Amino acid sequence: MLYKEVQFDINYSRKNLRWDGWGAHGQDFYLKDHISEIIQLIKKEWSLTILPETPGIQIEDIKIKNSRLTSDIQKNLIKIVGEDNFKIDSYERIFHSLGKSYYDVLRLRFNMVPEITDGIIYPKTDEEISEIISICKSKNIAVIPFGGGSSVVGGVEAFKYKTHKAILTLDMINMNKLIEIDSLSNTATFQTGIYGPDLEKILNEKGYTLGHFPQSFEYSTLGGWIAAKGSGQQSGKYGKIERLTVSMKLITTEGNIITAKLPPNSMGPDLNSIFTGSEGIFGIISEATMKIQKLPDSRKYFAILFPSFADGVGFIKDIHARGIKFSMARLSDEEETTLFSQLNDLGKIDSLSRKFKKYLTKKVLSWNHIGERRCAMIAGIDGKISDIENSLDNIKSTLGLHNGFYAGTSPGKNWLKSRFNMPFLRNHFMERGIGVDTLETSITYDRILQLHDAVTIAIRKVQPVSNTLCHISHSYPEGASLYFTIIFPIDIKNPLEQWQQIKKAASDSILVNGGSISHHHGIGMDHKEWYHRIIGEEAKKGLLQLKRSWDPKGIFNPGKLISE
Amino acid sequence: MLYKEVQFDINYSRKNLRWDGWGAHGQDFYLKDHISEIIQLIKKEWSLTILPETPGIQIEDIKIKNSRLTSDIQKNLIKIVGEDNFKIDSYERIFHSLGKSYYDVLRLRFNMVPEITDGIIYPKTDEEISEIISICKSKNIAVIPFGGGSSVVGGVEAFKYKTHKAILTLDMINMNKLIEIDSLSNTATFQTGIYGPDLEKILNEKGYTLGHFPQSFEYSTLGGWIAAKGSGQQSGKYGKIERLTVSMKLITTEGNIITAKLPPNSMGPDLNSIFTGSEGIFGIISEATMKIQKLPDSRKYFAILFPSFADGVGFIKDIHARGIKFSMARLSDEEETTLFSQLNDLGKIDSLSRKFKKYLTKKVLSWNHIGERRCAMIAGIDGKISDIENSLDNIKSTLGLHNGFYAGTSPGKNWLKSRFNMPFLRNHFMERGIGVDTLETSITYDRILQLHDAVTIAIRKVQPVSNTLCHISHSYPEGASLYFTIIFPIDIKNPLEQWQQIKKAASDSILVNGGSISHHHGIGMDHKEWYHRIIGEEAKKGLLQLKRSWDPKGIFNPGKLISE
Repeated sequence: MLYKEVQFDINYSRKNLRWDGWGAHGQDFYLKDHISEIIQLIKKEWSLTILPETPGIQIEDIKIKNSRLTSDIQKNLIKIVGEDNFKIDSYERIFHSLGKSYYDVLRLRFNMVPEITDGIIYPKTDEEISEIISICKSKNIAVIPFGGGSSVVGGVEAFKYKTHKAILTLDMINMNKLIEIDSLSNTATFQTGIYGPDLEKILNEKGYTLGHFPQSFEYSTLGGWIAAKGSGQQSGKYGKIERLTVSMKLITTEGNIITAKLPPNSMGPDLNSIFTGSEGIFGIISEATMKIQKLPDSRKYFAILFPSFADGVGFIKDIHARGIKFSMARLSDEEETTLFSQLNDLGKIDSLSRKFKKYLTKKVLSWNHIGERRCAMIAGIDGKISDIENSLDNIKSTLGLHNGFYAGTSPGKNWLKSRFNMPFLRNHFMERGIGVDTLETSITYDRILQLHDAVTIAIRKVQPVSNTLCHISHSYPEGASLYFTIIFPIDIKNPLEQWQQIKKAASDSILVNGGSISHHHGIGMDHKEWYHRIIGEEAKKGLLQLKRSWDPKGIFNPGKLISE
Repeated sequence: MLYKEVQFDINYSRKNLRWDGWGAHGQDFYLKDHISEIIQLIKKEWSLTILPETPGIQIEDIKIKNSRLTSDIQKNLIKIVGEDNFKIDSYERIFHSLGKSYYDVLRLRFNMVPEITDGIIYPKTDEEISEIISICKSKNIAVIPFGGGSSVVGGVEAFKYKTHKAILTLDMINMNKLIEIDSLSNTATFQTGIYGPDLEKILNEKGYTLGHFPQSFEYSTLGGWIAAKGSGQQSGKYGKIERLTVSMKLITTEGNIITAKLPPNSMGPDLNSIFTGSEGIFGIISEATMKIQKLPDSRKYFAILFPSFADGVGFIKDIHARGIKFSMARLSDEEETTLFSQLNDLGKIDSLSRKFKKYLTKKVLSWNHIGERRCAMIAGIDGKISDIENSLDNIKSTLGLHNGFYAGTSPGKNWLKSRFNMPFLRNHFMERGIGVDTLETSITYDRILQLHDAVTIAIRKVQPVSNTLCHISHSYPEGASLYFTIIFPIDIKNPLEQWQQIKKAASDSILVNGGSISHHHGIGMDHKEWYHRIIGEEAKKGLLQLKRSWDPKGIFNPGKLISE
């Protein structure tokens, strides 16, 4: 079974991908024919008659300086990888200078890119990487590791300190080979430049899956997942990326570190846990051995409705405590539920029978104490049919304790269809004066409701005209993640300041209310300030020492995670 | 439900504990009345008529030098904790100078203790710890963190470098308070000096359990479990200690590091995973927040018989792949199964009905292709009755694929009774010329059978008269742990060299065959050589840098883990 909703065989050549938006040319939002209606909906919500025009620019409008890589260095780099695998043309340099956050796309579309990378190199082997970074070390050139480039926290941003002579982006996508499947130990070893769909295709054809499906799945790579410590939509079954990783290879300027392919052990501080989430600051993670599982026989995705967010949270906590197996329990708050229900209505004619059906639904829900402001959960179970049935029985019998109402499988099927597609909506919004940013946290259950409300209020304070939606996408026995989506009219005079204000308000509120500054996006450049406050001075000092040990010249991904 | 097999309210005063053996005075091996028979069995197995006399010494026979802590320093330490909480008498100094490994007990009983700690301090608060280590930093005194002192790898050994003026053992057992139970997030925060039974008692009385039951449970502390990265017998349900830990506090000479109480997140390298397994070399872990679960409603422990170790391994791998829930699957190899079956027969009269029952059992097993050389597994499930039944059904239906035979619950009940008791047998063996050491590894399934055979052969090569037993006690989707027990006649002329030879042979073999040098005992002093070979030079260099950052004077637990 290949996953039907996954688009395989995407052409990842950099020219085929949007430089100022999400995804490949030719791939688009599944409701693209209804964009005007969506915009109308939002205008009505905000009581606005017009929204600013934000058409964006042509790539040629971005002025870039000559590459700071000297011709000698260029020659030496080309000697290692060949002419075809070294680029300094404007398109490649602009494409590789930022990631895909709202802030990144904003800076591209408003022609405010702060720094342009000086060249891009595409190694094919570990040996090539070692040679490249050896040159960069001796010449003091910043090295930015780059996979899918889908970071939304500034993780791949072209940035250098004054001491660096130039910036070289090291694009890993030619390192996309399967190295070994160990069917006895249920592990697979890959080069880390492999994109999500390519990795799953290889595994699926042999009956396996990694089970890691972040929303960015189609446009992100194994190495990026590990470096940013990502999480897939089915983390309830498969676990966050750090739980899927068995061993890896880190290439540093001082030598390679290969963690042994081993089950859990008691051999000192866990090296894999040091490299996972390291965001490229120690060196290049070039290979990784991952846990794989047999493809599930079947799956069932369905909706549950709750009268309130608190009820839904109580249900999530309870299924963990009861040890009920599930792959996903994605709970939208009232705001998000309303928006999705409006999207769902798009293009559907309000016929008499439809009206009657709606009336009936409303009645049935009200009998179950579920009003207009309700919360929808999309939950999913993957596995053997008997296990799915067993889990579903347990879920249904737990529902009642939390005022939940089982609402059938069609919303689940819809969700599966559009699971990787939502980022394409932003492409349209940003052309029409609407900003959309997402941010996320994780928090223990004792403070989750308080944080949810506080962040929403904090954002509204600095951006009164806006909608803040939220869902829980990943959960654990002790807590869960909250994923916020903020929609607002772009302030075309001060778009960057506007974003910075929203970001600061939300992040400060997360910090004050005891959340992590990121559950699966990472730290990059955008979260550093809050990250440092959470871990404290001594922890930061230790991590910096670790970096100095493996990257004494400080060439790897400057400005990210722990560097000032 | 308090666990019936756990002895609560043990008096942990150091004088009430054996200084040259396992456990408290008054607690003993459950088959202590059959020791002579057991010795006879072993003599027969080895074709020996006599075994050497090894009566041990009196504690007074151990000559110790005066404490190297100057009277000034002593006064300053007493000022911090009070007279009652600082000790320099011979008993306390000897008791705290070694752990509980075979090598440790051997050195104590043969009067070959290499180094004696100069004093013992019992802090009660984090502030006291900070003051103590501040003195030690300024005076260059080595600080050995000590919990239950049950390390079997030299983790608490009194050891100093030439630069250190003296050794101070920091005994944590007065720091044994519950700080908070967060019933919303299912976490509990404790001071780390709390012993296993005390911790479980507090939790059990509120309906919770931590679920961490290492064999040392009655004589080890939370801090020791975390520092050594231990594993409990029910790790199949609850997870290894690193999976149970939510956050902790590390007290260093440079300041405190408090990791935030958070669910999984993507905030850089995982600090908890750096501290867990750090074996006291960075500082003192004084507090930890742990995941807790509701006490299981019920439990079922039972035996399964397999015709071979390979069949049993195949079964373990399969229940992981099928996602069948279990708490424990403890598979003995043929050698260990034989010994346990002999122990089980002790004191039972071979009546006619018993003979007939044995004959019948043999017949039934042979119909199931299970011969005399078979492998027994004790498996256990804890949880709701319906979940237990469901798991048991799944286990039974999987058994057939691996030639397994369900052998009922009475072996399971027996195992539960003696689960923490086996180390007491060593006390008797070591008085009667018999050495017993245990060592363990973890390894992926592709190499597990090969490693099992290779280690057994390697030990026999250096110690032909011996028995090497093995079991799998912890397992994962990608591999499992192997726990070896080696029984041999003590070479009373060269007892230390004999042990070193066996240890080297086994460890070399583990390394060559791709295993970890420890699954849950840790590195300490005994495993350093092999640990360093596994992680490599660059990884070691990095960890040393980390230590320098938090322990610049190098006072914390010298000689353990990564120091030379």
